[in-house]
Amino acid sequence: MPAVQISEIVAFTGGRYSGPADRMIDGVAPLAGAGEAQLSFLSNPKYAAQLASTRAAAIFVSDDVTGDDGRFIRVANPYYAMASVVAKYFDRRPMPSGISSLASIAAAATLGANVAIGPFSTIADGVVLGDGVVIFQNVSIEAGTTIGDGTIVYPQVSIYDRSVIGKRCIIHSGVVIGADGYGFATEGGRHHKIPQIGIVRIGDDVEIGAGSTIDRAALGETTIGDGTKIDDQVMIGHNVKVGRHCLLVAQVGIAGSTELGDHVVVAGQSGFGGHLTIGNGVQVAAKSAVLDDVPDGMKVMGIPAVPFREFARREAMLRRMAKKK
Amino acid sequence: MPAVQISEIVAFTGGRYSGPADRMIDGVAPLAGAGEAQLSFLSNPKYAAQLASTRAAAIFVSDDVTGDDGRFIRVANPYYAMASVVAKYFDRRPMPSGISSLASIAAAATLGANVAIGPFSTIADGVVLGDGVVIFQNVSIEAGTTIGDGTIVYPQVSIYDRSVIGKRCIIHSGVVIGADGYGFATEGGRHHKIPQIGIVRIGDDVEIGAGSTIDRAALGETTIGDGTKIDDQVMIGHNVKVGRHCLLVAQVGIAGSTELGDHVVVAGQSGFGGHLTIGNGVQVAAKSAVLDDVPDGMKVMGIPAVPFREFARREAMLRRMAKKK
Amino acid sequence: MPAVQISEIVAFTGGRYSGPADRMIDGVAPLAGAGEAQLSFLSNPKYAAQLASTRAAAIFVSDDVTGDDGRFIRVANPYYAMASVVAKYFDRRPMPSGISSLASIAAAATLGANVAIGPFSTIADGVVLGDGVVIFQNVSIEAGTTIGDGTIVYPQVSIYDRSVIGKRCIIHSGVVIGADGYGFATEGGRHHKIPQIGIVRIGDDVEIGAGSTIDRAALGETTIGDGTKIDDQVMIGHNVKVGRHCLLVAQVGIAGSTELGDHVVVAGQSGFGGHLTIGNGVQVAAKSAVLDDVPDGMKVMGIPAVPFREFARREAMLRRMAKKK
Repeated sequence: MPAVQISEIVAFTGGRYSGPADRMIDGVAPLAGAGEAQLSFLSNPKYAAQLASTRAAAIFVSDDVTGDDGRFIRVANPYYAMASVVAKYFDRRPMPSGISSLASIAAAATLGANVAIGPFSTIADGVVLGDGVVIFQNVSIEAGTTIGDGTIVYPQVSIYDRSVIGKRCIIHSGVVIGADGYGFATEGGRHHKIPQIGIVRIGDDVEIGAGSTIDRAALGETTIGDGTKIDDQVMIGHNVKVGRHCLLVAQVGIAGSTELGDHVVVAGQSGFGGHLTIGNGVQVAAKSAVLDDVPDGMKVMGIPAVPFREFARREAMLRRMAKKK
Repeated sequence: MPAVQISEIVAFTGGRYSGPADRMIDGVAPLAGAGEAQLSFLSNPKYAAQLASTRAAAIFVSDDVTGDDGRFIRVANPYYAMASVVAKYFDRRPMPSGISSLASIAAAATLGANVAIGPFSTIADGVVLGDGVVIFQNVSIEAGTTIGDGTIVYPQVSIYDRSVIGKRCIIHSGVVIGADGYGFATEGGRHHKIPQIGIVRIGDDVEIGAGSTIDRAALGETTIGDGTKIDDQVMIGHNVKVGRHCLLVAQVGIAGSTELGDHVVVAGQSGFGGHLTIGNGVQVAAKSAVLDDVPDGMKVMGIPAVPFREFARREAMLRRMAKKK
Repeated sequence: MPAVQISEIVAFTGGRYSGPADRMIDGVAPLAGAGEAQLSFLSNPKYAAQLASTRAAAIFVSDDVTGDDGRFIRVANPYYAMASVVAKYFDRRPMPSGISSLASIAAAATLGANVAIGPFSTIADGVVLGDGVVIFQNVSIEAGTTIGDGTIVYPQVSIYDRSVIGKRCIIHSGVVIGADGYGFATEGGRHHKIPQIGIVRIGDDVEIGAGSTIDRAALGETTIGDGTKIDDQVMIGHNVKVGRHCLLVAQVGIAGSTELGDHVVVAGQSGFGGHLTIGNGVQVAAKSAVLDDVPDGMKVMGIPAVPFREFARREAMLRRMAKKK
């Protein structure tokens, strides 16, 4: 990759820096592993001790960091500054370009400008791909699906019919969008399938991690709001509504018809029962089971989930009691 | 979709209805979202308040529902009635038809009547597909696998060699059937692979949700009984036996050689240790860890799982104690 | 499969046996299901009662087993002996051979001797496949990835760019290696993507179960040590380091930047917080949540995880208290 002068990086991030301006940076690395031509950053205070020993050429730090190492570039949010620099200068992932002659594209599909489609991908009837959409190899997109401008779909993704996906989304390998929700009517000891005739609708700027599954609605829509980021192996049931700018960490599961507000943060391996209403800004600790509605802004944890403070009190009590015995 | 006269729907479901018989229905929707030409239903009492405000043309309700709204169609099981109507009149998923010239089909494979196979699917030597089997695009079916009449396999499914799959099954995207079980013999600090030479056998009318994995047996068979419905991201280990008409909700895991009886219901994110015997009709609450055998008909929950009543007693006790402090 | 004389099996495993040496063995089966020409084994004492009734021709047992059944072949590790015999004589999985004309292989890829590639697999620019590598059908291998000699990649696997995979690995269907880690910098209520420009590096003799996902590093490397065996649906976050000869059972999740030592054993459905240091030889019981560092050799369980003894004491106390009420 081409090297970039440190003064350009300082200007781009709006940081404060008093070291030598003409050094060349050819990459970004964590403090412990950075070489002498690399940029680094301190975001998690756990790694502050590495500031003394790192060989990095320059280091993004916040104003909270004491000392006056000439390599410091002071910025409001070191993690965000580092991310911006990587995105602008050092992110060079190989991507497909053009339409592979080995893809299967229905005559009745509509492709925007500069669409790329890799080999062995299937684009069915009535699919609409916006400008700049990138479909890697071995992807299946079923009839009537719409994908907005600039969205990237990695290999081995399956998108069922009539899904609606927004702009600038990133969908990783192994994701399944629009498979049937889990709906059965039990009659005489047999489970009869409820046909799942709804759809999945995903907003703009949504990222979905590898192996996650988002089921289509029984009737109506399963929806994911703008800006929500979903980690790997997350399971979202039919008719779930996830709000905007939520974070759903790996292996979370949300049962059918539950609704999450905006800016909800759910840590890994947590689950939600069905038909719940979870307010805006709610935070759920890892490995919790949310079985009741949660009001706006509340932080919960445990199985079943209770407010943080209640969980902490109970946990402290149990530790004390177990020690006494 | 073509509209259907309400009298035809009433007759088809055997319901009781006293409203205008000639209105036309063009779809089905939940109470809150139903339009004036749509049919709706009340199954979960949580939504009963919506009966007053819904614009639906007609509503399936059970005898328990009071009032005499002229739109009510009274049936024994509203959810099942709705499902039957959707399946009969309003379920129109686009499916592949015919054998794609872009599929790779071994000369030594046997295809029944009216089989459909999509592009980029691989059907290996000795595979037998029954009448009316539908294989979507980008599916891999390895040598010697047998699939019964009417089974549907969605895109991005992988079925390993010698698997046996019944009739009228539905296998969603991302499912893996017959991968190696997790078997190692540790000797001198190294884990030596136990070759997994058994198979997977799946009964009739089984549905398997997106991203679920069912491992082949080390020796012998991993089996799933007739009529069992498996949700997304469920993990079934080698040599597991799941009985008939079970429900396994999302992200459940079952360790090797455990046996479940018939009509077992396991809620989401629960797990089972290996080599257990779980009786008929057992129910396991969400996020439980079943580490011991469970007799017929027992309901368990918790980590480790204990009978419902014991769990509830302990939970109530802890709440009381935490409040006192 | 061809039958093998029992004397050859005894010699191959170095066992002690005093029965008839010339009987022919044509397969291996569990005690309960073994036929009269099959070999069986007793490894889990739970099944000892089946020794009396099994019809097996010969049985691997350890010295601990009492009695002098003429069919016993005494070995140090019956499970390992059985595995060795299956691997040598009875493991005949059909595998692709040669390079399919239906694969898409970049001119700039480098293929070792005796490589096999199935139909509809994509091998991108700069990929290097060692001698004897087997790539099944419908696999995607992106640019710059290196795969060592003898590694097997099953169908529907996705390997992102620049991944490094060792020798003799086994990668099952649905696995995703090198997808983006979950990294966002939140600024003004929006989550901005941290480009994930690191890689995944996997050692030799690693097995990865169906549906598991191993994310690439943000910067640097996510690493899996030699000899580590990963079960199905395991999630490994960015910049995680897993040591050598570890066992990670199904549905385990490891959050970003956590480091596991060598010989760590993690039972099913357990999770780790991020940025933790887990020592050598640590054991984690099923469905635990490890939220703090764990020193070498410690056994932990619970949510949050505590030492085994502390968990057992607390559990016993709660049982006593709940009974009193």
